[in-house]
Parts: sequence; structure tokens; C-alpha cells
Amino acid sequence: MEHAKIILTGDRPSGPLHLGHYVGSLANRVRLQHEFKQFVIIADLQALTDNYDNPQKVHDNVLQVGLDYLAVEINPKKTTIFIQSQIPEIAELAIIFMNLVTLARLARNPTVKTEIAQKDFGESVTVGFTVYPIHQVADILVVKGTIVPVGEDQLPMIEQANEIVRSFNRIYNQPIFGEIQPLISAVSRLTGTDGKAKMSKSLGNAIYLSDSADIVAKKVMTMYTDPDHLRVQDPGKVEGNTVFTYLDVFDPDKAALQGLKEHYMRGGLGDVALKKRLIEVLNAFLDPIRTKREQLAKDPAYVMQVVKEGTLATREVAAKTMQQVRDVMKLNYF
Amino acid sequence: MEHAKIILTGDRPSGPLHLGHYVGSLANRVRLQHEFKQFVIIADLQALTDNYDNPQKVHDNVLQVGLDYLAVEINPKKTTIFIQSQIPEIAELAIIFMNLVTLARLARNPTVKTEIAQKDFGESVTVGFTVYPIHQVADILVVKGTIVPVGEDQLPMIEQANEIVRSFNRIYNQPIFGEIQPLISAVSRLTGTDGKAKMSKSLGNAIYLSDSADIVAKKVMTMYTDPDHLRVQDPGKVEGNTVFTYLDVFDPDKAALQGLKEHYMRGGLGDVALKKRLIEVLNAFLDPIRTKREQLAKDPAYVMQVVKEGTLATREVAAKTMQQVRDVMKLNYF
Repeated sequence: MEHAKIILTGDRPSGPLHLGHYVGSLANRVRLQHEFKQFVIIADLQALTDNYDNPQKVHDNVLQVGLDYLAVEINPKKTTIFIQSQIPEIAELAIIFMNLVTLARLARNPTVKTEIAQKDFGESVTVGFTVYPIHQVADILVVKGTIVPVGEDQLPMIEQANEIVRSFNRIYNQPIFGEIQPLISAVSRLTGTDGKAKMSKSLGNAIYLSDSADIVAKKVMTMYTDPDHLRVQDPGKVEGNTVFTYLDVFDPDKAALQGLKEHYMRGGLGDVALKKRLIEVLNAFLDPIRTKREQLAKDPAYVMQVVKEGTLATREVAAKTMQQVRDVMKLNYF
Repeated sequence: MEHAKIILTGDRPSGPLHLGHYVGSLANRVRLQHEFKQFVIIADLQALTDNYDNPQKVHDNVLQVGLDYLAVEINPKKTTIFIQSQIPEIAELAIIFMNLVTLARLARNPTVKTEIAQKDFGESVTVGFTVYPIHQVADILVVKGTIVPVGEDQLPMIEQANEIVRSFNRIYNQPIFGEIQPLISAVSRLTGTDGKAKMSKSLGNAIYLSDSADIVAKKVMTMYTDPDHLRVQDPGKVEGNTVFTYLDVFDPDKAALQGLKEHYMRGGLGDVALKKRLIEVLNAFLDPIRTKREQLAKDPAYVMQVVKEGTLATREVAAKTMQQVRDVMKLNYF
């Protein structure tokens, strides 16, 4: 059985999206929606695994993430946006897949081990957080996803997913699910404003798509440059200089950027002047996104209607998948 | 909020039911259905946790268990019989409850520890088997169950369930679920025909409700009596003598039984004569059940219709429960 090329990707609605999301995934989605059938999941249940005591936050961020999607030109005519908790078939599949994974195998998943260590759960790690890789496989397979954009660090998740695909198809003797191909993005991560490896809400080093021009300016002014570049006339380093990292990504005028780099390296270009250029570049980039987002934010009902339509369309696909699963597992009685 | 008294009980459809099920639970259900609202779950997904590679067996035993229920006079007008896999809300609740339990707490559950040891899973214990206590809480709470008939050994399961009830009600700030009361049955277990503590399909020491009179006779003839009772004229022991254990439970003529015991203890009553009495008693007990079961087995569509109606009624209840859960967890968007 040939499986169609279908993308599943998405986000946890635990906060608005930032430039790191844009560079790492949103830009890809906008491009890929013209090439493939694409589903984007707003994974509210997954957000609840570590926000279970703050459901209002998760609820409110569903709209924020929806606004971000439409603002960056994810096109609902091309991309199906849906909310995880509204698709009961995902929970059903997750429960079924849990029989196909040993607890020992799950505990060996390096992505999960790293996250559990990072979040400093210790003994308090919940069952929900532990099993989320299986839940995530259900997210993908419920829409028959076969392509999943990931960072390098998430490759073990794809391997675990494919073990489930192979086990299911073998045990129930029907190639219902196709193996999942990871799509590794070239620029998978954007450095945070503090120079740390990853822009992230929890590290407080993020520039949001919804930040105003003033806030962007303030955040850029705090950015990490070359700590040895003390006086304007000193030569400065470009490598590892976060401002240049951002300019590399966002400045459309590559010739002018090359000129700036040379000027900085030989001395005479101050950090403030450099940052002003980045503020200009970022705000030029963000202006159309912000304008569209502000317009959309005036009509949240429209945004939720788009998400509702995507969710209803996904439920139809999910119901078909679940019917096939019921058939091969003999869970059809009536 | 006062919670109604609602019973949730049921079986895994991994084989037909036996006398141990009758004594331990079916007889209670027939009695309790006149006193309480009662739901009986045919837990096919739970049966799949250790039969995931044999779905046909689980499928076929749903009908067998349905036949057993109706044959012992579980009355579908009084008791709602439903199939677990047909209620997606159970999977949804299970996924949600997994956030309220730590992995460490789950691993400490003595009932689960014992079962994992008994089944000799070792490293191969699946995630599905590990999390089934949480899945079971979802079975109970999806119908707002507040009374669960259990054996003493299952009390830790009820305690774990009530931890989830309390956590959920506290975190989401609404007393949606009532605490669960265990109902410990007086005769919770019937010894197997081999004299071992528990009658069980896997131990091969069971007399099934569907066994013919001949098979019952053969099984009784192999039963464990008093190993020191070698000749008819020798005095024999009543205590620990499985044949007497069964007569104590099933012989309606308690005076005659007392006579038999005295005769056996003073000597002169042979094991064959004693077993013939038990065969007579068991077949007299099983005859009406078998007759009804044979009649019903001619019309499996009727049995499945009864189960279907129960399942549809349960879905209505489950949908209401899930709506309340969605409301308090802010998982309502449209």
C-alpha cells in the first residue's frame, strides 16, 4: 500500500509564538503547504501535561497560536489547523498504541530522558508526561501523517513512532499506516536574545511575533554581541555575535550585511549602530505579520471559526482512520 | 454535590465466565441490580493489554461474556451492559487522568506490582499494561460510578482511583466526581478444582457456566479432596477439602450437607460418592443457566442488540460526563 505524503506538525499552546518558531517551523509550513497536504495540530492536551493546573492559560493560547498561524500566512485553504482535544480518536489510538511499546523502551527514548532532566521533574514526573511520545504518534497517525518536520534532537521520537507503525501493521496484518519520514529543517533553531542555544518562552529570551516595534527595540538593545568589543573603534567578532546571527537570518540585503560585518571586524562600528540596523530589519520583517495579526485579533470569532472548520475536517479523517483500526483489531461489533 | 450511588463493574472478555465469576461477582450483580443503577463493562481494550496479538479471541469472547450475563439473569432492563472500546470518552478521560498520577505512584500500586510479577513480564511489560489502573478509573468515572465491587486485594486500586477523584475535583475546582466506595463481597473467591486459591482460566482449574453436564462431572471427578483419605472406611478431613468447599457454596440442602460432613469425618463415605453428590448439586445449579444460555446462543444477534443498546445508553452518559470535564478544564472552544 502506497501512503500519501501528508505532513503533520504543530505547537503546544502554552504561549504566543516567537521568531524561533518562525525560523524553525512556521516559515517551512508556509512553503510546504503548497507542496503537500498539511495538518497543523494545536496540541492543547500535550500542553496540559505540564500545565494541568493552569487550563485557562492553555485555553487562551489556542487563540493566540491561531492568530500567529494566520498572521504568518498559513493558509487555511491549504493547511488544516485543528485542536487536539477535539479529536477523541487521538486518545483512542494513543491507548491502543500503549500496548505496542514497553515501559523500558519508552524510558530509553533520549528525547524524553533529556526533557525529564531539563524540567527537573525527579520523582514527580507524571504518567501523562512520560507517555506523551506515544500520544504524539497518535497525533501523527490519526491523520495518516507520513512527513514530520523535526529538529535533529527529535529523531529518536520518529524512530519510536516508526516502531509503533511497524508493530501495528505486522500484528494486525494490514499496512494501515505508512512509515514516517522526518523532514529536518536547515535552520532548525534560532539563538535566544541572551545568546543561548535556543529561543524559548521559559528562558525569557524570546522575541514574539506579536511584540510591538518598541518591545522589539528594547529586546534587541539587551542582546548579546561580542563581550570583548568595548569601544567603538575596537575590532569586534562576528562569529558567536547574536546580533549578526539574527541579521544573517533576517536581513534581506546580504551585500550591505557583508559590508557591516567587515566594518565591525576592522573596528569603528558600534554595537548601538549595529543593533539599530537589526531593529530596523526585524521590524520590517514583523510589520506585515503584526498588521495582519492586529486585524485578525479584532475578530477572534473568525479565527476560531477557521480552527473549527479545520477541526471538523480533521474529525472526518480521524473517524476514517479509526474505522480502519477498529476493523483490523476486530473492535467492530455492531 | 451529592453523588448518586452508581455501580460500575465488569469483566475482561478473554474467555467465558466460570463458577468463580459467579460466586465472586455475577451473583452480586443479579442481586444489586434491584437496589442500584448498575453498569457492567465488557472491557475489551483491557483484555487487549495482554492479548494485543490475538484480537479475534477478544472479539469472540465479547459475545460469550454477553451470553453468560444474560444466562445468569443479569437483566438488561435493570443493568446497562456496554463495550469499553465503543466509548471513546473512556480513552479521553484516561489520557487526562494520566496527568494527575506520577509514574512513581503508579509503580507503587501493590495490585499492579503483584500482577506484573505473576505474569512474569520482566522487562517486557508494556505501557498499556502499566497504565491500566488509570484506564480503569476512567471506566468507572465516565459513568460517574461511586460503588465498585472488589476483592480485598483490589483495595489499592480504589485508593488510587480516589486520589485521582480528589486531585481532579481540587485542581479543576468542581466536585464533578464522587469518591468511590469499595463493596467487598463476602465470598470473593472460589477455590479452583485443583484446590488452589483461585479459580482461573489460565490455571486450567475452572468450571465454566457453559460447561456441559458431562464436562462438569469429569472436572469434579479430578477434584482435590483429602490426600490422606485413602480407603472408604478411613476418617477424612472436611477442612481444605475442595469438594466440601464447593458443597458449602452450592448445596442448598444444608442439613443433608452437615450429615455428609459428619459421615466423611467418621469414615465410610468414599470420595466418589461425595463427588457424585457435588456433580448432582452443580448440575442442578447450572441446568437453568445452561438452558437459558443455549437458547440465547441460537440468537447471537439478540445478545449483541442488548449490548448495543446498553452501549448507546452508556455513550449518552459518557458524553455528558465528558462535557462537564471539558467545561471545567476549559477544553471548550467552539
